[in-house]
Amino acid sequence: MTCCYHKEIVDMRHELHRFPEEGWTEFWTTAYIAKYLRGLGIEVLMGEKVISRENCLGRNPQLVAAGIEAAKAKGVCECLLEEMQELTGCVAVLDTGRPGPTVALRFDIDCVNVLESTDPAHLPAKEGWRSERDGLMHACGHDAHAATGMAICHWVKEHLDQLNGKLKVVFQPAEEGVRGASAVAASGVLDDCDYFLTSHVSLMAKSGEVLSSPINFLSTTKYDVTFTGRPAHAGIEPNAGRNALAAACHAVTQLLGISRHGSGMTRVNIGRLIAGEGRNVIPVNAKLVMEVRGETGDINQYMCEETENIVQGVAKSFGVDYKIEKMGAAVDLVNDAPLVAMLDEVLANTEGVTTVLHDINYGGSEDATILAKRVQSHGGQACYFVMGGTRPAGGHHTASFDFDESTLGTGFDVYIGMVKKLMA
Amino acid sequence: MTCCYHKEIVDMRHELHRFPEEGWTEFWTTAYIAKYLRGLGIEVLMGEKVISRENCLGRNPQLVAAGIEAAKAKGVCECLLEEMQELTGCVAVLDTGRPGPTVALRFDIDCVNVLESTDPAHLPAKEGWRSERDGLMHACGHDAHAATGMAICHWVKEHLDQLNGKLKVVFQPAEEGVRGASAVAASGVLDDCDYFLTSHVSLMAKSGEVLSSPINFLSTTKYDVTFTGRPAHAGIEPNAGRNALAAACHAVTQLLGISRHGSGMTRVNIGRLIAGEGRNVIPVNAKLVMEVRGETGDINQYMCEETENIVQGVAKSFGVDYKIEKMGAAVDLVNDAPLVAMLDEVLANTEGVTTVLHDINYGGSEDATILAKRVQSHGGQACYFVMGGTRPAGGHHTASFDFDESTLGTGFDVYIGMVKKLMA
Amino acid sequence: MTCCYHKEIVDMRHELHRFPEEGWTEFWTTAYIAKYLRGLGIEVLMGEKVISRENCLGRNPQLVAAGIEAAKAKGVCECLLEEMQELTGCVAVLDTGRPGPTVALRFDIDCVNVLESTDPAHLPAKEGWRSERDGLMHACGHDAHAATGMAICHWVKEHLDQLNGKLKVVFQPAEEGVRGASAVAASGVLDDCDYFLTSHVSLMAKSGEVLSSPINFLSTTKYDVTFTGRPAHAGIEPNAGRNALAAACHAVTQLLGISRHGSGMTRVNIGRLIAGEGRNVIPVNAKLVMEVRGETGDINQYMCEETENIVQGVAKSFGVDYKIEKMGAAVDLVNDAPLVAMLDEVLANTEGVTTVLHDINYGGSEDATILAKRVQSHGGQACYFVMGGTRPAGGHHTASFDFDESTLGTGFDVYIGMVKKLMA
Amino acid sequence: MTCCYHKEIVDMRHELHRFPEEGWTEFWTTAYIAKYLRGLGIEVLMGEKVISRENCLGRNPQLVAAGIEAAKAKGVCECLLEEMQELTGCVAVLDTGRPGPTVALRFDIDCVNVLESTDPAHLPAKEGWRSERDGLMHACGHDAHAATGMAICHWVKEHLDQLNGKLKVVFQPAEEGVRGASAVAASGVLDDCDYFLTSHVSLMAKSGEVLSSPINFLSTTKYDVTFTGRPAHAGIEPNAGRNALAAACHAVTQLLGISRHGSGMTRVNIGRLIAGEGRNVIPVNAKLVMEVRGETGDINQYMCEETENIVQGVAKSFGVDYKIEKMGAAVDLVNDAPLVAMLDEVLANTEGVTTVLHDINYGGSEDATILAKRVQSHGGQACYFVMGGTRPAGGHHTASFDFDESTLGTGFDVYIGMVKKLMA
Repeated sequence: MTCCYHKEIVDMRHELHRFPEEGWTEFWTTAYIAKYLRGLGIEVLMGEKVISRENCLGRNPQLVAAGIEAAKAKGVCECLLEEMQELTGCVAVLDTGRPGPTVALRFDIDCVNVLESTDPAHLPAKEGWRSERDGLMHACGHDAHAATGMAICHWVKEHLDQLNGKLKVVFQPAEEGVRGASAVAASGVLDDCDYFLTSHVSLMAKSGEVLSSPINFLSTTKYDVTFTGRPAHAGIEPNAGRNALAAACHAVTQLLGISRHGSGMTRVNIGRLIAGEGRNVIPVNAKLVMEVRGETGDINQYMCEETENIVQGVAKSFGVDYKIEKMGAAVDLVNDAPLVAMLDEVLANTEGVTTVLHDINYGGSEDATILAKRVQSHGGQACYFVMGGTRPAGGHHTASFDFDESTLGTGFDVYIGMVKKLMA
Repeated sequence: MTCCYHKEIVDMRHELHRFPEEGWTEFWTTAYIAKYLRGLGIEVLMGEKVISRENCLGRNPQLVAAGIEAAKAKGVCECLLEEMQELTGCVAVLDTGRPGPTVALRFDIDCVNVLESTDPAHLPAKEGWRSERDGLMHACGHDAHAATGMAICHWVKEHLDQLNGKLKVVFQPAEEGVRGASAVAASGVLDDCDYFLTSHVSLMAKSGEVLSSPINFLSTTKYDVTFTGRPAHAGIEPNAGRNALAAACHAVTQLLGISRHGSGMTRVNIGRLIAGEGRNVIPVNAKLVMEVRGETGDINQYMCEETENIVQGVAKSFGVDYKIEKMGAAVDLVNDAPLVAMLDEVLANTEGVTTVLHDINYGGSEDATILAKRVQSHGGQACYFVMGGTRPAGGHHTASFDFDESTLGTGFDVYIGMVKKLMA
Repeated sequence: MTCCYHKEIVDMRHELHRFPEEGWTEFWTTAYIAKYLRGLGIEVLMGEKVISRENCLGRNPQLVAAGIEAAKAKGVCECLLEEMQELTGCVAVLDTGRPGPTVALRFDIDCVNVLESTDPAHLPAKEGWRSERDGLMHACGHDAHAATGMAICHWVKEHLDQLNGKLKVVFQPAEEGVRGASAVAASGVLDDCDYFLTSHVSLMAKSGEVLSSPINFLSTTKYDVTFTGRPAHAGIEPNAGRNALAAACHAVTQLLGISRHGSGMTRVNIGRLIAGEGRNVIPVNAKLVMEVRGETGDINQYMCEETENIVQGVAKSFGVDYKIEKMGAAVDLVNDAPLVAMLDEVLANTEGVTTVLHDINYGGSEDATILAKRVQSHGGQACYFVMGGTRPAGGHHTASFDFDESTLGTGFDVYIGMVKKLMA
Repeated sequence: MTCCYHKEIVDMRHELHRFPEEGWTEFWTTAYIAKYLRGLGIEVLMGEKVISRENCLGRNPQLVAAGIEAAKAKGVCECLLEEMQELTGCVAVLDTGRPGPTVALRFDIDCVNVLESTDPAHLPAKEGWRSERDGLMHACGHDAHAATGMAICHWVKEHLDQLNGKLKVVFQPAEEGVRGASAVAASGVLDDCDYFLTSHVSLMAKSGEVLSSPINFLSTTKYDVTFTGRPAHAGIEPNAGRNALAAACHAVTQLLGISRHGSGMTRVNIGRLIAGEGRNVIPVNAKLVMEVRGETGDINQYMCEETENIVQGVAKSFGVDYKIEKMGAAVDLVNDAPLVAMLDEVLANTEGVTTVLHDINYGGSEDATILAKRVQSHGGQACYFVMGGTRPAGGHHTASFDFDESTLGTGFDVYIGMVKKLMA
């Protein structure tokens, strides 16, 4: 099948690559996808139909406003922007009109904050489809994900009469920082789904390798914590101050010491701490950018509760005000065995797939897990898989990230294979 | 005058030295003083008349009970013990019946927890009046204070017709740990006093030297802080515990970091920390024995407030219970200039006084300051002075502490000189 | 078989139960075992032949000296004590003289610091074999282990002509605190062994249940850490002190925060902290009683290195001296599958064994693992199993610990079954 | 005298105010001063003659380079820049050629990082002499100091024949952050001076008030501390990282807890902490911007030693690299009584001086103290005084800082009065 759609995927990926948009600002990207799909006669849902506004995590109003302006400047029409209601992402709905299961596929669409390489050895630079936006780059492959999702919609639209049930294809915003899935899940758009399937193109495996059931997704919660104190001259009247920097440092020493959990892995990291003003002023402001993780949702919940106790306790100790903002979330995931078995069957019959690996440690966190759990919690089945993509280039989130585009066709074929089986 | 009373003071001091009693357990000592005074026909107040029960700091019920038993075994009669109401210390009242000022003198009577030296070079050992109670010793000179106070009562009783006004002589319990004065002050027994005079015999000055106006008494508050958590096996389920040891350690790191004060000196010390049970058990119990100090009462109050905030905050952070007990208190003191001037006059005319020093740094804390402040707060005047007492021996609170007994007569003379002037 | 030996095991267990000895002081216990075995004509090794003096962990010379005195008072002869060279434990050697494998069995012999219950519902109290030594008790079943080992030697001695190869039965001292195995291992006494078998009677399973391959033994290292500073008066000259308590508290906050390990579980616990002297003295002494654990030896090693860095760093920060003493050690263990298979066969044919459980989480640490690893490192196979023993009584290490003695016969049968197979 | 010079001072102050330059970048300012003085025929020393390059504290090479470019753009000639040798500040030397004392006066010339107010109520804004450089402002009055110093040189040049000895007028760079004085002192340019006189115009006193002997200058040292660790993914392999943020936070908790000093006041402030990179990365970089202070040089030295121990210890604990950079320094100061007496005499006879205050607490730190101590250490006398300057405006270092310019004449008169007495 590949032959017919591979070039389309590649072209669309390059187009998306040129105009990367970070999480919650993917207005042009959303418009690009919506226009393409509607051009094919496909129903597209946007705005609060697919994004629960109050469940948006880590959404910065200033960046959103700037994103809308950038989209307008790039020529996105007002009517589409209005339909989005300041919320990015969309869901394509392809209904056969015949009884059958509802199947969901999910592709993420946001970029990361990286300045793309100008090195001629870097294909996007060499071939002229490098990011037009300095400091923003599709350095995690979401451009490829989105393009693949669009092509799948195209194929399904053309083969709708051979299928049964309904397909929902989610183009999810703000995966970076695991921020977007909570809002998609809370919108309820996936609550009628029987199957959920998603994947990531990754350098952690080689071209031709597919991990059909990675394990050890860590549940995670991302927090921004701020402390606010009161200034004073550090020489003349230090006692009159309320030291937010001291509070933050003691919070860090306590957070790192949250007790291990007897039932499984935990993690805690304060990735960034910015505190204080002048050398001789008792510091007024402090901000911690942090995350906790747990091998299960319960363990992560334990980490969250300890974190909140510590932040409150330290604020009391130092007489400072505090704020805890949830900036992102992902949960753990166990792929449903029947779906993995089906995937393995498809993989065995997909050209380009040379090796299928099981039970590989994922280690990190992914917010697709929140969508998967949502579907599972309604009795559905879910499966997350990883497509290998060799390229002698930089790692994920680096200036020279790239991957083997030949795998794009393979990934497409795998999804189509699954759709054909599930909607048979 | 000395000739008549010096031997009496020395004999009584030796008797007291043989049976030292620690703070709040001075039942035999109190009985010894009361019997002597009543034998001279002097009125003696005891129990709640001179000690406010609810203001006793650092009073250990077990030690009190053992002290009563020890006093009984030493032959103290039940009737006196009943009159004491489990509270030690007493106040002698000598009223001339004539108009005039009310003058208060104060002498402390408790011992410290030191095992007395058996070295023949140590006079009490050599001469046979060493402590009979191992681990308890009058190693701070309070035996001498008490004996001097008793002899002064004797003299005043004999010269009552030559004086005017009223004299109150306080025999204060539990000076060590600055625990007893708060309860004496709160009893109100000194609220009618116009003058307050007290002193300490000290190795910080030589025989013949008197410091008539030491400065820089630090206000202080002594606390015992306990944290109580929940045990758990440290290998199997550490998360189920609530770690009191961790809370205590973080409390210490925060307490030591309480901000300096722009208006004057501060101090904070955690002198002792005992926490935990077994090596592989999340610790349940932790206790901090601590103190704060400040150059003024306000600064000490600041240290107290910070301490309480920290203890509460840490308890919140670690999900443990806490208790803060006030174990002792002393305040700052500025001697009243007119009283110092009068003292200087007396000193100039006292045989045995060779040098009078002013404005010497005291550095430590003394709970006589609480009584002095109480009298000052009612419009009275107060003065604390230090009698030097050379002895090539160990320092205060050491096993071989001793001092030059010839200064006992000098100290007696100074007090009598002041009494004659004030009650002229 | 049981019939012939069960009563002997029970009687010997009760005798051992009456005179419990804590780790490294099992002089009477060792003598009791040695005399019994030699009485049967069995070779017994003691002293440095089976214990490497320099590898004794957590051995307190004062307790050792007191233990020797207690053994003498209990009638142990000087010649046996001399043979022990102040080192407890012994190894029985039963050589068939015929070619064949060398098999090692291991039984631990020390008690714990618990005051045994006098409750008549507690069998030892009711039947008159309660501990004669207040504060010491066989509250972890090592009395049963030792008695079983002795009976096994008895059986083997009587059936030696039906077996091949050699049997070594280790009576190991100081298992509590995982202190003794390192010294046995380092002695080399097991270096010629092809098989190593040991077990624990445990309330974690019911009578009739056997765990033939528990998993997740945590590697562990036990440390005592001391800091030594310099005293100073906390009011007058705090800067002149070197604060050991502060160092200890900062060490604790750093130790609890040692980073989690990506490859597996870690643990760290400071179970006890004792620091400081007087309330108003900058603390001179501090001691931490602690442990670290890791899912593997490498991970535990990581925890050890971090611990040492922290202790050194904190000592530098606070200008105090430090000492780190290794007080105990255990490693992880994976039972060898062929030996587990053989054990399962034996269990299937042992009367009294109703259920065999696999892959049960052990969670804690055991120093038999050190001996097992030593044997494995020389190419041998090892297996640790757990015998269930219901008793509606207190848990391990509590005053009313006890277990179902009927399982003693079952345990004996399992070992004999294994010996017959291994030495066939 | 004022009449003749007051307008000149005001005009020059406004000119300097328009082009503020921060510490170590005062190239245009230095050139402005040098050209004016040389225009009057006064000898001016620059470059390494007055600034010891290796003793420059807190000198940022990037800012220096930018400062040179800015000065060139402002029209400063290459020859002057070459003479400066990249070092700012200068010293005017006025030698009478007759025997007599060498007198040093010192004026600082740098600005602070403040965006000047555009409020019409702010005189510089209203009258058109507001800073031309956004983010840089003479908000601490050094423009006035420099202008006064220049006018004094003018007067002395015109009255040289009435004076004896020699005058050195130091125009010191980089007073803010107490960075510049160390380099001036180390150059040796003041080593032949018998008297040292300097002052600050300040809102801490009202117009007409002069503090002739402020007390309690705190010795201080400013540090920048950096820790450098190793990154790792916080989810996958946190143990592989070396956490610079954690090291920094523990350093802060230890630094804040440096023991109080028995001999006098101490201070410690970490004014700013910036650490870490991404939320899910073990932090690699951390920087602390901090200061310590002490009531005396010895006490400050104690704080410095403790700081260095802590930084080293924490680096060891966390396995990170560290760097400690000294960014500034000032010492304590006791004005010489004879010079204060002389100043009081002059003040008593200076029009515009209404009140002279003694022994007022200064509280903060000033690097003129380093120059004063240098002169005192060679047997000279030094005096620092404060000229009050009311203005209902913002405080020092705020956007609307200003002061009463009428005091400029008063200040000038005081200096001239002193010069006439000292060089009589």
